[in-house]
Amino acid sequence: MPNILFAAGDKRWQQYKDTLPLAFDAVGLTDCDLRRDHAPQDTDYIVYAPSEGGLSDFTPYTKTKAVLCLWAGVEDIVTNTTLTQPLTRMVDTGLSEGMVEWVTGQILRHHLGLDAQIINPDHKWQAIAPPLARNRTVAILGLGALGAACGAALAALNFNVTGWSRSQKSLPGITCHSGEDGLQEVLNTAEILVLLMPLTTATENLINARTLAEMPKGAVIINPGRGPLIDDNALIAALDSGHIAHATLDVFRQEPLPQGHPFWAHPKVTVTPHIASETRPETASQVIAKNIRRSEQGEPLMHLVDRSTGY
Amino acid sequence: MPNILFAAGDKRWQQYKDTLPLAFDAVGLTDCDLRRDHAPQDTDYIVYAPSEGGLSDFTPYTKTKAVLCLWAGVEDIVTNTTLTQPLTRMVDTGLSEGMVEWVTGQILRHHLGLDAQIINPDHKWQAIAPPLARNRTVAILGLGALGAACGAALAALNFNVTGWSRSQKSLPGITCHSGEDGLQEVLNTAEILVLLMPLTTATENLINARTLAEMPKGAVIINPGRGPLIDDNALIAALDSGHIAHATLDVFRQEPLPQGHPFWAHPKVTVTPHIASETRPETASQVIAKNIRRSEQGEPLMHLVDRSTGY
Repeated sequence: MPNILFAAGDKRWQQYKDTLPLAFDAVGLTDCDLRRDHAPQDTDYIVYAPSEGGLSDFTPYTKTKAVLCLWAGVEDIVTNTTLTQPLTRMVDTGLSEGMVEWVTGQILRHHLGLDAQIINPDHKWQAIAPPLARNRTVAILGLGALGAACGAALAALNFNVTGWSRSQKSLPGITCHSGEDGLQEVLNTAEILVLLMPLTTATENLINARTLAEMPKGAVIINPGRGPLIDDNALIAALDSGHIAHATLDVFRQEPLPQGHPFWAHPKVTVTPHIASETRPETASQVIAKNIRRSEQGEPLMHLVDRSTGY
Repeated sequence: MPNILFAAGDKRWQQYKDTLPLAFDAVGLTDCDLRRDHAPQDTDYIVYAPSEGGLSDFTPYTKTKAVLCLWAGVEDIVTNTTLTQPLTRMVDTGLSEGMVEWVTGQILRHHLGLDAQIINPDHKWQAIAPPLARNRTVAILGLGALGAACGAALAALNFNVTGWSRSQKSLPGITCHSGEDGLQEVLNTAEILVLLMPLTTATENLINARTLAEMPKGAVIINPGRGPLIDDNALIAALDSGHIAHATLDVFRQEPLPQGHPFWAHPKVTVTPHIASETRPETASQVIAKNIRRSEQGEPLMHLVDRSTGY
């Protein structure tokens, strides 16, 4: 009878208090005790939303077999030295579907130039059809579960999709690159660039003055990944010079984005409020239930975080 | 050695004068004589852009084996009683791809609510993630080459796709309906409605006060088909009452849309300048070349217009 501690905020508890037990039942875990107040020494598993639950010292959780993070990005957790228990991150079909929809929608918006008609106060009728997707190169930095899913959807729409990841991947419909040379090659031809890397010491500020200069003039940047992947000042400079045509940003170093931040008023920036995708309670509960069942049956955990790479 | 008359405007001649001969060569028609000035009695085939070429009396073209229209919609031609020669309309992969991209882009724009962030003068941070596509019903009226291609792309993005056509179809990923009852069923659940029917006496004003009332409150209409499919005044009334949330219109009864038309200034209407898709010279030339070769070899023409249905 595993004791499962739900370490997250009130709102999230409302979302999960019924879906998690249903998911436990569905995988045959009929005797789970899900609560928000298990004593540390009695806690077998922790379902965790960083910064929400007030839990930051994992030292007393000596019996805990795994910490299951509800979020895909774990950069705020891997630096917690008290967390020595196995840590998993969320790989959720709902999260992935939502991200594919948002990324595809934003890419089609920029590919088709929709803004020119959505905002058209002078009622201009300029009948210039956009090029076909097969003549448009879209690049994805980060080819994990989310990047690969977005690339597949974009390839199905005939986009010419290139991708870059730390380790070399091989994915259908995506021309995959890796390494320093690979990054430069991808940036050189990226008309629309999507950032879906994890945030690590290696990827922080990866989009900076030097890498922005490697992109073709008029390129567009879409960031549904993590704010610190971009050097904000370098991006603003590249937008102001006209080298980068537009940036659509969903994530920021500080969220909500402070009202005084230059991104808000910049005519070439679209700010979206960290909604590109979110973990969906129903599908996320299934992933957590499946992982706890695996652990209880002595099978290895899925989506285990590698502390050396940080994701 | 077939004589091929190119009956279209100067701009279109510039687009086709090189691509058509290349396409003829590619299918083995090495001896075509493509010109803008063949005498009627010497003309074997007419490549035709209605209203552009100045050609409206087909009576003297007694030897002409086929009129090959460059456009997908032929409503302006089928009413020409002098045109008794076989008439084909354009079914072009380029046109189809462009339409899929535009329709998918507009649907994702409305599905994701992108306008709220594209136009956000008060810098509101409202972190409400949109629902997943699998919980959104998109309906397509008209399941010809374009409607079917759009439906397939939307189904691949997990949208719940329903469709309606005059004759009952069976298409993967699309719940197909036909007939009066079928139309009502499709309209009743259409959160986003796409119009891709041909314009005929049966489809003119199909979207009117009665059919608009059958749609759920808050529905969105996207029209990349033909302007007269919609009763403009009924649509404006439904937008003003709040029953229909938005209309994105690419085609109109008069084009360019006159500056005084209420669609221009309506806050719930996006006007796009007939750019949803266009025939692409390279792929369209291939379709025309293939059809002329078929005719020369005694095979039936593709995409022949049925004068009784009007498409």
